[in-house]
Amino acid sequence: MPASDRRGEESEFPFMSRYKNLPDVLTDHELAALGDACVNFVFSLASSKRLKKPVGKKVKSWILANALRRADLRKLLPSRVDRHRQADAAEALIIYAWMKGIISIEECVTILGKELETDEGFTTLLQTISYRVKF
Amino acid sequence: MPASDRRGEESEFPFMSRYKNLPDVLTDHELAALGDACVNFVFSLASSKRLKKPVGKKVKSWILANALRRADLRKLLPSRVDRHRQADAAEALIIYAWMKGIISIEECVTILGKELETDEGFTTLLQTISYRVKF
Repeated sequence: MPASDRRGEESEFPFMSRYKNLPDVLTDHELAALGDACVNFVFSLASSKRLKKPVGKKVKSWILANALRRADLRKLLPSRVDRHRQADAAEALIIYAWMKGIISIEECVTILGKELETDEGFTTLLQTISYRVKF
Repeated sequence: MPASDRRGEESEFPFMSRYKNLPDVLTDHELAALGDACVNFVFSLASSKRLKKPVGKKVKSWILANALRRADLRKLLPSRVDRHRQADAAEALIIYAWMKGIISIEECVTILGKELETDEGFTTLLQTISYRVKF
């Protein structure tokens, strides 16, 4: 039987208590660095599922930036942030949601698996998270 | 409540049935590419836990290659494989174990969290997996 992947006690990651609202999450570049590793993992899993062979893939910044805008979250960032920072915001939100237990890796893979070549999958993923997230 | 992260049905990843023994896993470079994303994710989580702030980290090849040798798995590879391929073998085994439900992300983080600067954590992780893996 597969072991379950829980984030464990939030006390193991005390920095999680520093986020008081959604903009706190979206603008944290340190969180985005951790989120980058998470996003590449779930995207690689979704790509492996789709291609029916194991692959390692990195997500392009424009895909994450477009998804952020289409999920109506771009407006929570300052107006002048570039595409790279918009992608960071998407990565930060995804890892935040995973660490809070709002979304599982399996669900990320299922959502992304439907559409890998465009921003569609990440748009749905970010929308799903933003509906569920509470502060 | 955190959602659980299960690998879902193995039928979603039909390539998992291609591995008939441990050398099949350790020498699959495609699997290593997927494993690289997994290893960087769990190592980033373990590093974030240790440093008490979110970070994204990549694992150095020599750490994985040393861990493979110390976990007594190096002998399952051809004698002339270089350090990079030894690191690949470690990555392939870790993602294989995760996809088979042999180890969870949380357990990886717990094991790695004890020792991040040397090959100690990955040695323990690979040993734990090799004790549990069945063909």
